[in-house]
Amino acid sequence: MAEHDEILPVDAMQRRLKEVRSLLDRQKRVESLLHRQEMPRHDLVETLVVKQHHSELTKKLDTMHPADIAYILEALPPEDRLLVWDLVRADRDGEILLEVSDAVRESLIDAMEPKELVAAVEQLDADELADLAPDLPTEVMQDVFSALDVEEREQLRSAMSYPDDSVGALMDFDMVTVREDVTLEVVLRYLRRFDELPDHTDQIFVVDREEKLRGVLSLSTLLINDGEVEVAAVMHEHPLVLHASDDAESAAQAFERYDLVSAPVIDHHDQLIGRLTVNEVMDFIREQSEEELLAQAGLREEEDIFAPIMDSVRNRWAWLAINLGTAFFASRVIGAFEGSIEKLVALAALMPIVAGIGGNSGNQTITMIVRAIALGQIAPDAARRLYRKEMGVALINGIVWGGLLGLLAAWLYDSWALGAVMSAAMTLNLLLAACIGVTVPIVLARLGRDPAVGGSVLITAVTDSGGFFIFLGLATLVLL
Amino acid sequence: MAEHDEILPVDAMQRRLKEVRSLLDRQKRVESLLHRQEMPRHDLVETLVVKQHHSELTKKLDTMHPADIAYILEALPPEDRLLVWDLVRADRDGEILLEVSDAVRESLIDAMEPKELVAAVEQLDADELADLAPDLPTEVMQDVFSALDVEEREQLRSAMSYPDDSVGALMDFDMVTVREDVTLEVVLRYLRRFDELPDHTDQIFVVDREEKLRGVLSLSTLLINDGEVEVAAVMHEHPLVLHASDDAESAAQAFERYDLVSAPVIDHHDQLIGRLTVNEVMDFIREQSEEELLAQAGLREEEDIFAPIMDSVRNRWAWLAINLGTAFFASRVIGAFEGSIEKLVALAALMPIVAGIGGNSGNQTITMIVRAIALGQIAPDAARRLYRKEMGVALINGIVWGGLLGLLAAWLYDSWALGAVMSAAMTLNLLLAACIGVTVPIVLARLGRDPAVGGSVLITAVTDSGGFFIFLGLATLVLL
Repeated sequence: MAEHDEILPVDAMQRRLKEVRSLLDRQKRVESLLHRQEMPRHDLVETLVVKQHHSELTKKLDTMHPADIAYILEALPPEDRLLVWDLVRADRDGEILLEVSDAVRESLIDAMEPKELVAAVEQLDADELADLAPDLPTEVMQDVFSALDVEEREQLRSAMSYPDDSVGALMDFDMVTVREDVTLEVVLRYLRRFDELPDHTDQIFVVDREEKLRGVLSLSTLLINDGEVEVAAVMHEHPLVLHASDDAESAAQAFERYDLVSAPVIDHHDQLIGRLTVNEVMDFIREQSEEELLAQAGLREEEDIFAPIMDSVRNRWAWLAINLGTAFFASRVIGAFEGSIEKLVALAALMPIVAGIGGNSGNQTITMIVRAIALGQIAPDAARRLYRKEMGVALINGIVWGGLLGLLAAWLYDSWALGAVMSAAMTLNLLLAACIGVTVPIVLARLGRDPAVGGSVLITAVTDSGGFFIFLGLATLVLL
Repeated sequence: MAEHDEILPVDAMQRRLKEVRSLLDRQKRVESLLHRQEMPRHDLVETLVVKQHHSELTKKLDTMHPADIAYILEALPPEDRLLVWDLVRADRDGEILLEVSDAVRESLIDAMEPKELVAAVEQLDADELADLAPDLPTEVMQDVFSALDVEEREQLRSAMSYPDDSVGALMDFDMVTVREDVTLEVVLRYLRRFDELPDHTDQIFVVDREEKLRGVLSLSTLLINDGEVEVAAVMHEHPLVLHASDDAESAAQAFERYDLVSAPVIDHHDQLIGRLTVNEVMDFIREQSEEELLAQAGLREEEDIFAPIMDSVRNRWAWLAINLGTAFFASRVIGAFEGSIEKLVALAALMPIVAGIGGNSGNQTITMIVRAIALGQIAPDAARRLYRKEMGVALINGIVWGGLLGLLAAWLYDSWALGAVMSAAMTLNLLLAACIGVTVPIVLARLGRDPAVGGSVLITAVTDSGGFFIFLGLATLVLL
């Protein structure tokens, strides 16, 4: 973050967005006004007015933080977005591309010439380049790669070699390292030669001649101790050390548990190769939780709210297809009992209630269990305890809600037998939901799959078809 | 975080949990073995063996980080949890209570004597005390309060006066402040008198005589500049400044946008009263996203996975009741068309498909819109654009999936008319879902309510009842 970038108070982003929108609107109004008159002498005026608006916008954008410009780009519809993007100073394009969402990044990159792109991303650090690389055209990446020096190429290769959700993919290479046999005074003098310290430098890494990590020296320790003290005497020898191949989620949990700002990252030779900082961890946590929320609604990825309709259809179709498949299966279960429904049409009206409560209750169970699994809190022998508990909850709910709805059904259709079937079916479907709700995430986790994905579809499929089958089957046996 | 607390590598927590579990198991096995023999001379042996296991566990716990002990307590069933809790050194109880989840905290506090509790929490900082206060018995809080000095009392009162989701509730009071007219050399000498700097000190706050914030001095700036330079010459005069009454969510977004580690907090007299640090922000983000996930499944709060059955029933009943209410309403809609179903029983089998696809598609729409609203990306005039887009997506889905399912229905029941009704009803319900999916969050947001809560129930209720009504109504008009 350059020192001159303007920092906006927390409630100012909306106002700033409004200002930009109104500048864009004014400009459009002027343009359309002038166009309507279609007089050649207006060309000059038009150019002048547009230029004035442009320069006002440009001035605003120049002082803004790249993350704030990214925010504004995301909130503008495509035509305005590209207009603003053109007004951004070319040397800031790279940092802004890093900040925008994937969907918007695509639209910006599409609008740029390869030469512009090369110029924009050339100035980025290797770890930042690695983040953008998948979205850049191959020829652009080749040009950029050949312009890098040997060390940067090595770093870029290293950063791109780690899988997406690993520490290696999130780390950067901006480290300050010292030797353990120097005094703090020497460290202070060394630091004074920097133009600025890397962002999020809360500690300096202490390495030996082979670049192996010996410990860390926090700035706080450096500042409160006497200059004559040696680094080795005050460094922390057992900090949290991450491996580049570590799972990013575990690293994030460690950052939260130990309240870290940065952590050293080593490779499989135990050599220090980078560091992970809390801002990357925070972005990772936010992205993870967004993905989870999107996945629960069956959205494959974040959508640009202004994306063309077909992009949205593509993003959403798989989920709809799966759900239609399970709904069709449930429909065939009902189809098998058409004879019973013909004889007692009340069954058709009551059956969605039985199916529905199973789905709702099963989703509650699965959400609980998935969370406990994510935190690693479920012991191998805990399954039995969980089954017992969830079955207990289901039984109580079955008795309470099944009883209530049974009474309602009996009163509505004037049949105690129908009421009893309703109660029994609801209780059985709740028990089925509890059973599946515990089993599905535990089995998925054992198979090494993410238990958060797909569990909800599966449980709804089972409780829908199961609910129809239990209710209609029981009714056929008992009532007909 | 005390310097001696052990930091575990990211993959070691599970192993540590296992070790504790196996120590507890071994101890239980020995106890039950000795009990079975029931010989008085074994009393001594038993005491010895149990003591040995206890001391082994105690030693392990003593070196562990409070957050790690909290993790282990959460993962143990109640009886083991209390056993381990008893073995924790009393002077660490306070910091561990801060780390555990609300549900587990309750169970630990219930197991403690008032005197123990007072001793445990007395050593905490005012902001930490404020976090625990709602869970502590009144007489304990009174004892603690009367033991505080004037400044701490003032801080505690201040921290407790802000609403839960405000910056004031998350801030702490551990700040280092300096004046702007001193040199960096003086600042360095001042810092050297500290035993340690507060955690997450990445910047020092520069205040005037009236405690008004003049700027911030980052440690990085302090370290790279010459000692003779004055603070005023190098301090950053426009940092992100938070008001204690600011919304925590906006503050969190600012931390993410600007990659901050700490930010000064001022009151309505513009006086510096505290600071917000990134670890609190990260915890807040994690909690928010968990709450959202739990709320989506209708869980009022996080559950202790070992909680008694009745606690779980209480946590989940409201959601089930609401869903049963809407399901009952949908059932009455079907009930109104029982005559039609009696004549054409295929309707009963097909109607859940029509209702289902509306719910799924509507939830996709609402998730997108809620996310865009949360990011403030929806302009006042964007509603029309969103309606047009979501209606377009719905229309395409209606033609594709409605067409497909219509063909299937026509083939299954050998009726082109039924197929056509199916297609039309699916398309209409998708359009209804899109319409509600855009309207509900926008209206909720305008009313100042959280658009993430309740939207999903509402949309499912509308698309269920609406789907049944559209399909059965159309069929009655066209086919019968």
